[in-house]
Amino acid sequence: MQNTAIIRIHCPDQRGIVANVTDFINRHNGNILYLDQHTDRAEERFFMRVEWDLDGFAIAPEKLQQTFEEAIATPMQMVWTLNFSSQIPRMAIFVSRASHCLYDLLARYSAGELNVEIPLIISNHKDLEQVANQFDIPYFHLSLTKDNKPEVEAEQIRLCKEYKVDFIVLARYMQILSSEFNALYPNRIINIHHSFLPAFAGAKPYHAAHSRGVKLIGATGHYVTSDLDAGPIIEQDVIKISHHDTVQSLVQKGKDVEKMVLSRAVQAHIDRKTLVYKNKTIIFA
Amino acid sequence: MQNTAIIRIHCPDQRGIVANVTDFINRHNGNILYLDQHTDRAEERFFMRVEWDLDGFAIAPEKLQQTFEEAIATPMQMVWTLNFSSQIPRMAIFVSRASHCLYDLLARYSAGELNVEIPLIISNHKDLEQVANQFDIPYFHLSLTKDNKPEVEAEQIRLCKEYKVDFIVLARYMQILSSEFNALYPNRIINIHHSFLPAFAGAKPYHAAHSRGVKLIGATGHYVTSDLDAGPIIEQDVIKISHHDTVQSLVQKGKDVEKMVLSRAVQAHIDRKTLVYKNKTIIFA
Amino acid sequence: MQNTAIIRIHCPDQRGIVANVTDFINRHNGNILYLDQHTDRAEERFFMRVEWDLDGFAIAPEKLQQTFEEAIATPMQMVWTLNFSSQIPRMAIFVSRASHCLYDLLARYSAGELNVEIPLIISNHKDLEQVANQFDIPYFHLSLTKDNKPEVEAEQIRLCKEYKVDFIVLARYMQILSSEFNALYPNRIINIHHSFLPAFAGAKPYHAAHSRGVKLIGATGHYVTSDLDAGPIIEQDVIKISHHDTVQSLVQKGKDVEKMVLSRAVQAHIDRKTLVYKNKTIIFA
Amino acid sequence: MQNTAIIRIHCPDQRGIVANVTDFINRHNGNILYLDQHTDRAEERFFMRVEWDLDGFAIAPEKLQQTFEEAIATPMQMVWTLNFSSQIPRMAIFVSRASHCLYDLLARYSAGELNVEIPLIISNHKDLEQVANQFDIPYFHLSLTKDNKPEVEAEQIRLCKEYKVDFIVLARYMQILSSEFNALYPNRIINIHHSFLPAFAGAKPYHAAHSRGVKLIGATGHYVTSDLDAGPIIEQDVIKISHHDTVQSLVQKGKDVEKMVLSRAVQAHIDRKTLVYKNKTIIFA
Repeated sequence: MQNTAIIRIHCPDQRGIVANVTDFINRHNGNILYLDQHTDRAEERFFMRVEWDLDGFAIAPEKLQQTFEEAIATPMQMVWTLNFSSQIPRMAIFVSRASHCLYDLLARYSAGELNVEIPLIISNHKDLEQVANQFDIPYFHLSLTKDNKPEVEAEQIRLCKEYKVDFIVLARYMQILSSEFNALYPNRIINIHHSFLPAFAGAKPYHAAHSRGVKLIGATGHYVTSDLDAGPIIEQDVIKISHHDTVQSLVQKGKDVEKMVLSRAVQAHIDRKTLVYKNKTIIFA
Repeated sequence: MQNTAIIRIHCPDQRGIVANVTDFINRHNGNILYLDQHTDRAEERFFMRVEWDLDGFAIAPEKLQQTFEEAIATPMQMVWTLNFSSQIPRMAIFVSRASHCLYDLLARYSAGELNVEIPLIISNHKDLEQVANQFDIPYFHLSLTKDNKPEVEAEQIRLCKEYKVDFIVLARYMQILSSEFNALYPNRIINIHHSFLPAFAGAKPYHAAHSRGVKLIGATGHYVTSDLDAGPIIEQDVIKISHHDTVQSLVQKGKDVEKMVLSRAVQAHIDRKTLVYKNKTIIFA
Repeated sequence: MQNTAIIRIHCPDQRGIVANVTDFINRHNGNILYLDQHTDRAEERFFMRVEWDLDGFAIAPEKLQQTFEEAIATPMQMVWTLNFSSQIPRMAIFVSRASHCLYDLLARYSAGELNVEIPLIISNHKDLEQVANQFDIPYFHLSLTKDNKPEVEAEQIRLCKEYKVDFIVLARYMQILSSEFNALYPNRIINIHHSFLPAFAGAKPYHAAHSRGVKLIGATGHYVTSDLDAGPIIEQDVIKISHHDTVQSLVQKGKDVEKMVLSRAVQAHIDRKTLVYKNKTIIFA
Repeated sequence: MQNTAIIRIHCPDQRGIVANVTDFINRHNGNILYLDQHTDRAEERFFMRVEWDLDGFAIAPEKLQQTFEEAIATPMQMVWTLNFSSQIPRMAIFVSRASHCLYDLLARYSAGELNVEIPLIISNHKDLEQVANQFDIPYFHLSLTKDNKPEVEAEQIRLCKEYKVDFIVLARYMQILSSEFNALYPNRIINIHHSFLPAFAGAKPYHAAHSRGVKLIGATGHYVTSDLDAGPIIEQDVIKISHHDTVQSLVQKGKDVEKMVLSRAVQAHIDRKTLVYKNKTIIFA
């Protein structure tokens, strides 16, 4: 497998950005594999993701951050991140009782389709320990009560640090994380909300959808912010429903769209194809 | 073309409804063409649409209402309506400036695909008079100001009565009708709202969608009630969008989903396939 | 959980079918839960599925077949089947190497979403034995060579009989069953084909799709007949692709639509909502 | 409105293409508005579309072709085309009897949504002359018989030349053009086929779809080549159908997907976002 460098950039729109970046890579003998860019004219902001093969590249990986910063990023006022495909991100999964999203992620992981490590699963219930055991992944049951949320969060954070977690997936976790927790993983906590946001934010969206009589239900994969269900949206999808559907059948049908949307959002994150700007995402090709 | 009778029913759920209704039709020598039924167990309510060929039917059309009422509907506490396919409904179209929904309806009408009469088009602007002229349909321009809404509504109502209008389609009319107007056409005014309700109710939904950073936009065809954008939903659909989209491109892409959703909602209404119960619709097959 | 009776019928179109069937159920004190019917006017054929609560029903389950046959089915020339919801069907899964469809089925099964027993999994490869072990389901590896297909099929049939299998799901099994095998399970073997049939029947559909430059790929869940990839279609779906996709990315994206389509087809079969007539399916509501 | 230059390129994959092209534009003071590129690794071929503002650009439009050819295209073995947004393409529409695609195109045109001129409509039937009159577009009725196809084509070609037609849209024209005709407009004749190709190529696809019992029908917008229904696909879409659908209802439902797919394909062509390579299309963002 190729070792590649991936740069994600945003900066004020200006002439010569693509030329400068691609020239930098070419001059140092890098072979560009993917390049996708976007200009937001209303915001006068430029966004780009470029990935190139490091085989034969003239700058050593450990010097790349500084070299690019000085040569390109600083002069062009770029906000940017550098990743290497050789860095496999470590993903924690938080769950409650529903298994569909967890199974979908673990089935992909098990088939080698998610380029990720899953060092642990954390839950406030025991229900899914058996699933974790099936896949030989450590499972931590931290029971939540009205009073112990701070202690549970402290332990969750400790575990995430101990297991060197890079990002967290809330796979129908059904609990709200504190602002302090969120602040530790900015744009690195992915939640699946079981409605097409902003419709039916909050609890019991399928009850609300049934009550309103909508003709489609959906799911939204988004980064978690301190504003509940209002974080940057990564992926959304819907399915058609009808008057035949009960709340129970909506819950059941919704599972399919939830798990697909969450897995696609997680895949985009793992592939370093997401970029957040002003509470919205760019999803690169 | 066949002359058929169409009955739409709802009543308390109870044994024998389908048997009683179908037996009534069979006994009088009616040939059932379509039958669709639904039971809402939470509401303990039964819904049915049945359509049969009147050729050879033993009860004269003008006696059918009373005969069925006495024999079946009253004993089973039915709320029901009777229509004949020979009654071509008369549809008024209200528009403002955008032509896409109007053209889509008129193109279908012109091709003989909508079994409807369109006696008039009413607008608060002159822009689409030319479109009405293309299809030889009377166009009434009633200019709206801050102060003349009651007079304009009075004239709209007078025109609808004069032209014997059965139902009204708000084809991006962009004005709110008064509760009094709505009350004259209960479940007989169809609006297209340019979002997947309940998300982005109210004005400028594409601006709101762009601002929120959603990954899909939609449209909702619904019956108008006095509660703005909260009436019974007939049809909804969405299309995928991306970070490349501007407010302007959302407006443009949205037109396609708006016109398709509205035309499908209008088609369902014309075919007498809709039934409203407690602010939700049953859409029969 | 309710014990219900489910009848699926087709017969020549004629007056009084719905009335006769529903009257039969009502007269014997049965409460109809679901009823869906369809008339194919070109074929002059009537189709119906009706499900009713057996609680308080006046005919004993073991007498129902004969009573309905004499009273209704024979006079109306019905081809029909009777099932009871208390009969949990037993499903064998045949796999080769790809795990996505198997995991999707087993995750649903494990969550109690599929009302089915899965007594065994059969494969021509060892790859997925580990998955079967995760879910504690017996796994039989029957290695296929050029020469031993008859022996392998004999053993497959023996196992299916021993384990009292009602129907078989080919979850990307990638092998063709003999006509003799198919004849043992008519309309009871479900295959997932990785294209929107009839496009790209046969081997390597993603290669063919890539070569043709289509803009969408799909999957087809169908009953297996002796005519390869030509059996009655139960369910189909597609996803959009683009020029960016390689054969490899089509294979990967295709997995998502394959597993969803197969699971929906299996669900419809388990719920006794499918009916085959002249190589086409009726899928009841 | 901005005057922009649009370049579409394909060439052997090699280092420095993006850098060279973007540097060329920047050096001559061009502001890049859109850039999208794609590398086909299997074909080792690079594709790019770049659009920039000509305001302040240092090279005069009439010298741009030669300057870019010598500086960039020849050294990099590019096959490329140059367009200016100020060149409004001239589109002929060929129709037979069905009005839905024609109305959809003309409604968009009339609303100013298609940046195109429509100098004439050609048909082998008189049916749609009235539609052309509604929009004040010259309509030429050239009646086709078994024997006069060469003469009719000669007259069609003469008209297209006289009216300076750049490309042709077959909006359900239902006739096969000769190879000689096609050769005059390579990748400049767009057809809508009423199936998801390659399924149901040829005549009567809805009859074939109904007969096969598929659960979705579709439409394909493609460039016409001498190989019937096998040209490069620009756009495809599908809609769900069911056992309730007759051939007639498929024809009716299919109209909606046909007109949407054709209009999107035409829009992509007008925006110079299509590029054909080896019978497949790149559709740029």
